[in-house]
Amino acid sequence: MGRARLRELGINIGVMPTGTHNAITDVPGVRVGHYTLVYDKPRVARTGVTVIQPRGGAVWDDQVFAGFHSFNGNGDFTGTHWLDESGLITTPIALTNTHQVGIVRDALIAYEFELRHVEDFALPLVAETYDGWLNDINAFHLKPEHVYHALENACAGPVAEGNVGGGTGMICHEFKGGIGSSSRIATTDNDDYVVGVLVQSNYGRRHLLRVDGVPVGRELGYDRVPSARSVPVEGSIIVVIATDAPLLPTQCQRLAQRAVAGLAHVGCIGHNGSGDLILAFSTGNHIPYGQMLAYDVQMLPNSQMNALFEATVEAVEEAVLNALTAAETMIGFKNRVAPALPLDDLQAIMTEYGRL
Amino acid sequence: MGRARLRELGINIGVMPTGTHNAITDVPGVRVGHYTLVYDKPRVARTGVTVIQPRGGAVWDDQVFAGFHSFNGNGDFTGTHWLDESGLITTPIALTNTHQVGIVRDALIAYEFELRHVEDFALPLVAETYDGWLNDINAFHLKPEHVYHALENACAGPVAEGNVGGGTGMICHEFKGGIGSSSRIATTDNDDYVVGVLVQSNYGRRHLLRVDGVPVGRELGYDRVPSARSVPVEGSIIVVIATDAPLLPTQCQRLAQRAVAGLAHVGCIGHNGSGDLILAFSTGNHIPYGQMLAYDVQMLPNSQMNALFEATVEAVEEAVLNALTAAETMIGFKNRVAPALPLDDLQAIMTEYGRL
Amino acid sequence: MGRARLRELGINIGVMPTGTHNAITDVPGVRVGHYTLVYDKPRVARTGVTVIQPRGGAVWDDQVFAGFHSFNGNGDFTGTHWLDESGLITTPIALTNTHQVGIVRDALIAYEFELRHVEDFALPLVAETYDGWLNDINAFHLKPEHVYHALENACAGPVAEGNVGGGTGMICHEFKGGIGSSSRIATTDNDDYVVGVLVQSNYGRRHLLRVDGVPVGRELGYDRVPSARSVPVEGSIIVVIATDAPLLPTQCQRLAQRAVAGLAHVGCIGHNGSGDLILAFSTGNHIPYGQMLAYDVQMLPNSQMNALFEATVEAVEEAVLNALTAAETMIGFKNRVAPALPLDDLQAIMTEYGRL
Amino acid sequence: MGRARLRELGINIGVMPTGTHNAITDVPGVRVGHYTLVYDKPRVARTGVTVIQPRGGAVWDDQVFAGFHSFNGNGDFTGTHWLDESGLITTPIALTNTHQVGIVRDALIAYEFELRHVEDFALPLVAETYDGWLNDINAFHLKPEHVYHALENACAGPVAEGNVGGGTGMICHEFKGGIGSSSRIATTDNDDYVVGVLVQSNYGRRHLLRVDGVPVGRELGYDRVPSARSVPVEGSIIVVIATDAPLLPTQCQRLAQRAVAGLAHVGCIGHNGSGDLILAFSTGNHIPYGQMLAYDVQMLPNSQMNALFEATVEAVEEAVLNALTAAETMIGFKNRVAPALPLDDLQAIMTEYGRL
Repeated sequence: MGRARLRELGINIGVMPTGTHNAITDVPGVRVGHYTLVYDKPRVARTGVTVIQPRGGAVWDDQVFAGFHSFNGNGDFTGTHWLDESGLITTPIALTNTHQVGIVRDALIAYEFELRHVEDFALPLVAETYDGWLNDINAFHLKPEHVYHALENACAGPVAEGNVGGGTGMICHEFKGGIGSSSRIATTDNDDYVVGVLVQSNYGRRHLLRVDGVPVGRELGYDRVPSARSVPVEGSIIVVIATDAPLLPTQCQRLAQRAVAGLAHVGCIGHNGSGDLILAFSTGNHIPYGQMLAYDVQMLPNSQMNALFEATVEAVEEAVLNALTAAETMIGFKNRVAPALPLDDLQAIMTEYGRL
Repeated sequence: MGRARLRELGINIGVMPTGTHNAITDVPGVRVGHYTLVYDKPRVARTGVTVIQPRGGAVWDDQVFAGFHSFNGNGDFTGTHWLDESGLITTPIALTNTHQVGIVRDALIAYEFELRHVEDFALPLVAETYDGWLNDINAFHLKPEHVYHALENACAGPVAEGNVGGGTGMICHEFKGGIGSSSRIATTDNDDYVVGVLVQSNYGRRHLLRVDGVPVGRELGYDRVPSARSVPVEGSIIVVIATDAPLLPTQCQRLAQRAVAGLAHVGCIGHNGSGDLILAFSTGNHIPYGQMLAYDVQMLPNSQMNALFEATVEAVEEAVLNALTAAETMIGFKNRVAPALPLDDLQAIMTEYGRL
Repeated sequence: MGRARLRELGINIGVMPTGTHNAITDVPGVRVGHYTLVYDKPRVARTGVTVIQPRGGAVWDDQVFAGFHSFNGNGDFTGTHWLDESGLITTPIALTNTHQVGIVRDALIAYEFELRHVEDFALPLVAETYDGWLNDINAFHLKPEHVYHALENACAGPVAEGNVGGGTGMICHEFKGGIGSSSRIATTDNDDYVVGVLVQSNYGRRHLLRVDGVPVGRELGYDRVPSARSVPVEGSIIVVIATDAPLLPTQCQRLAQRAVAGLAHVGCIGHNGSGDLILAFSTGNHIPYGQMLAYDVQMLPNSQMNALFEATVEAVEEAVLNALTAAETMIGFKNRVAPALPLDDLQAIMTEYGRL
Repeated sequence: MGRARLRELGINIGVMPTGTHNAITDVPGVRVGHYTLVYDKPRVARTGVTVIQPRGGAVWDDQVFAGFHSFNGNGDFTGTHWLDESGLITTPIALTNTHQVGIVRDALIAYEFELRHVEDFALPLVAETYDGWLNDINAFHLKPEHVYHALENACAGPVAEGNVGGGTGMICHEFKGGIGSSSRIATTDNDDYVVGVLVQSNYGRRHLLRVDGVPVGRELGYDRVPSARSVPVEGSIIVVIATDAPLLPTQCQRLAQRAVAGLAHVGCIGHNGSGDLILAFSTGNHIPYGQMLAYDVQMLPNSQMNALFEATVEAVEEAVLNALTAAETMIGFKNRVAPALPLDDLQAIMTEYGRL
């Protein structure tokens, strides 16, 4: 499950309590599945796919409200035109690399057709970040069956982090990145709600990296941890936010933009080459497929969203850092090496800055 | 009440039935008030203000969902940032000329404060089109008391059209324009709903004018109806759409964009100099001020919105044409003359094209 | 090349002159390529792919400014996040069916890699409409080599219309639809410019169909031309607009939205089930790949765009109608029949309404 | 000029050099003017107006490209519809309180008309935050002559900060807020450019306040600095960014969104009640009023914008902190007290966290 989680190192982000697993799966019904490809022959593979099932396996029939935000659009996320228009998610969400978006998208359609046998179309949500520095990306490694496997094996509970699934070959702030997750319990006047986050983290320059406000990246100079000269410094990050708070589509969109504040805390500035795309969905309302009559949905008042906003900012920051503390050093394509964030150094720096 | 309405001339737009008054006030609770200023001394006034009360006089406490669309943004519509963010209308809507937006905006705030005496702020919705060809606009004629008068006297029932309120000095397709209204009854699988429209119409070139598809503007050449050389050919149009269908904010926004199709039928192409701004709201849900707990709202399924879309397209087209058939020839600033659309010619042309 | 073009029937849309071929290829450098799949065994294929090369084959290195607009988002168009952010098109554009978007997208990447051998990523622009009524869509007929073929054979000159390429299995206003194209010469104070349009047309209800304002759909009742009960009535339309006018990205976006007025003239209202997505690009500026220094681009003043707006509205209307007059009756999946728009009837109706 | 600037306390944000005055006026041609109203009789005034002249006093004739971003839309900013559509700023920018937006807007129009005597309209850019806790806002204190005064006296050089102009009665993170400014020199492959920022800062909860990553707000508990129970905790912030880099409108919009990262560093999360609105403009291109022919503009390649992005994030963070360190304790409406951020405590806390 990766080397360590940030909290295991004694570093806590923010003031709000986490959910049971400190993961997106703390939102009831949300499941995560990974398929990871790591081999060197015939061509180097350091890639995979991660799927998020918003409603167990039933999102096709029991849809969720959602909203989208682009912090920097140098990336792809298929299916968002309909999400923007309808405010609905009607398919699972998948994360993979830039050159496998197409095969994953069509595989999600084929899978749904096998499952439901309806004569209908689908507009799947597939996002990407670029792993071509560690992975021989033009080998197009991923096959439809890998996507099906991830879908079939998606589960609740702890989420594997670091070098797994879509995050396998990713790099973040010039260290090895990948998948990370976190969650918070937000207390409103109405009820307590979970906000869960999952990121595929592949962006950023080292000198901008901060941990709970401490300029860790500037302290971890190239003398302390060397770096390949060609290591990507822009990359991308995909953020998926889930909550059980009953939000309308416009409210999900507001939540999505709040992720930018969490990303900023870690040192993301939306570099030109970065696809920093964010999706937020709410499981708090059930939107049935094929409904013809008006139906009731619940709405949390806008004034109660502040707790969800703070929860999002905290959980996004921690999810990215979890990706960094979990991911292990990786040797990949052309023998390039992406070093793991050194955990001893991290703790030493945090102590120096009065945080441990 | 103006010269004539389009239907009185035997011309019907589309196939759907109208509401009782064929006006935005057919949506229960919606009221319209005008204040009109026409005088020549000390400076020429051909202007006014039109207010729309979405919820009788109670929108501050009993808010409505809404959405906004800009076809061409060369105009102003204050208050839309919060509308976009929250999906809510929390103040009356006012239409006036370009140089009176500020005084109307602040007057709406002062009026609300007098009424409610809460220590709070307001972000009123005030839109404009430019009447400076017929009206000495830099005389800044309108005063706060005119706005209060329009608010106090807003009422249900038939809506005055043509040279009234905010539409007093407006020009449309090089003929005298102004206020117009229309409505349709849309039948869905769930229920019948009213879609009502009010426009302040001040845009367009003559050769593009169409009535139910007939190229009336091309037929009404300058030999038939002369025109001042300096008559504005771009201008702007503000469209307000109301419905009692229970729509969410994203759905209101979709409805708003459908107005573009209705405008296109009359010959609007969103000229560069035109502020073609559209607001749509739904009275079907009641959003209480100061609500702290989650509450139920009703949602018409997206698939049922097609009837509302068609209704909007038809009603927008007819509302603009009602402004044209109602408005009378006006002599204004610098003795400029804006000719009314000649109704006899209109009927003759429609007959020629097999429509009457 | 299809049965007939609208102008061959004596029906002219608007007042502006067309380009040489009355097609998107009238914009210098723009090329169109189709690959069409029609066979019945082993599974019924009525599908294909259409590609548009904005800059001959060189758009990867010689990029163009562009803008996007969604009239109704029930469709997919990959690659638009980066287009929105950067204002640039950096790959060819491809149109296909809903379930082939993925394979076309990845094929465009593979093709580019073979061509340029750079270690870089691509975010191709691939749009879709649904042909699953006439085509056995879950057979996923299209293969990468078909995409390569369309790219390699893209050419200038006349554009094949109707049942070709991505438009092969499409339906429009309950008649056989598909690919259509048209162009206009727009005169500005600066210069004359070409505006060219290509559509993949697959939307709409019969009773809304209009030709130059004449309610042809209402006249062509089901007694006159029967229709299968299950024929799709919503569908989608993809519009691609090209111009050689030197526009900035924001100006391209403005042009894109003007297509809505052209669509409205034919009877498109942005049905809920429709993906009505519009892309506009300008070849008037050359944006070199990998440029590091500031460079000059040219900008047509906003006030000069009105001629381009009118040209767009006219060309979009005619392009859709060209798709309808070109497309032939098709028998497809499950022996369903999509009838061609009857040209004799069309001419008879136009005559009746004083247009021929 | 306020108590102190952050750098005078030994606290530096980020790594990039500032401009000469560390203020928005470091961008050549940009001028700032304030008018401040502080009196107790007949009704308590703690308010004013701040104007920004993007091009000396000549923006009406020598326009600038610009872009807008809303982080949270609970505020107003008039004139942005045209800015979004055209990518241009054509009037000065003014900041004031929520209930004075109207009078400032109309005053800007009257001022322009007196100056230029053209028969034309204007759509001024006026933004607001709410000062009704310290200022008797429904007294509507501001008059047109105050706006004229601020315009006439706008100047280059150091910018007054804290309790001045539009910022007079503002509160930030539960301390006295107001106007702040900062700048950075960004080095690109093409050239060095200035990025200057001015904020009117009136948002935020104390516990979220951070200074260069240090959780100052949590350290400054209510035992250390008491606070009135009713002090506003949401408020709003207006950010104006200027640069002399030659950017296109879409690039200005990208720059605007980067301000969110800077705001996040200080502890802004876009609270529901907050109007967090951002404008960015570039003086690097000159867009002449009334231009009819195509003209050349310069474009910095997108890849070179990263330096501008980092500069924006740094300068926004420092501008907000400058507002806090400059602003003095204020007693206002109903004898309410907004305490200044205690500078000794600030330095002590920074030392404790290894920063001084």
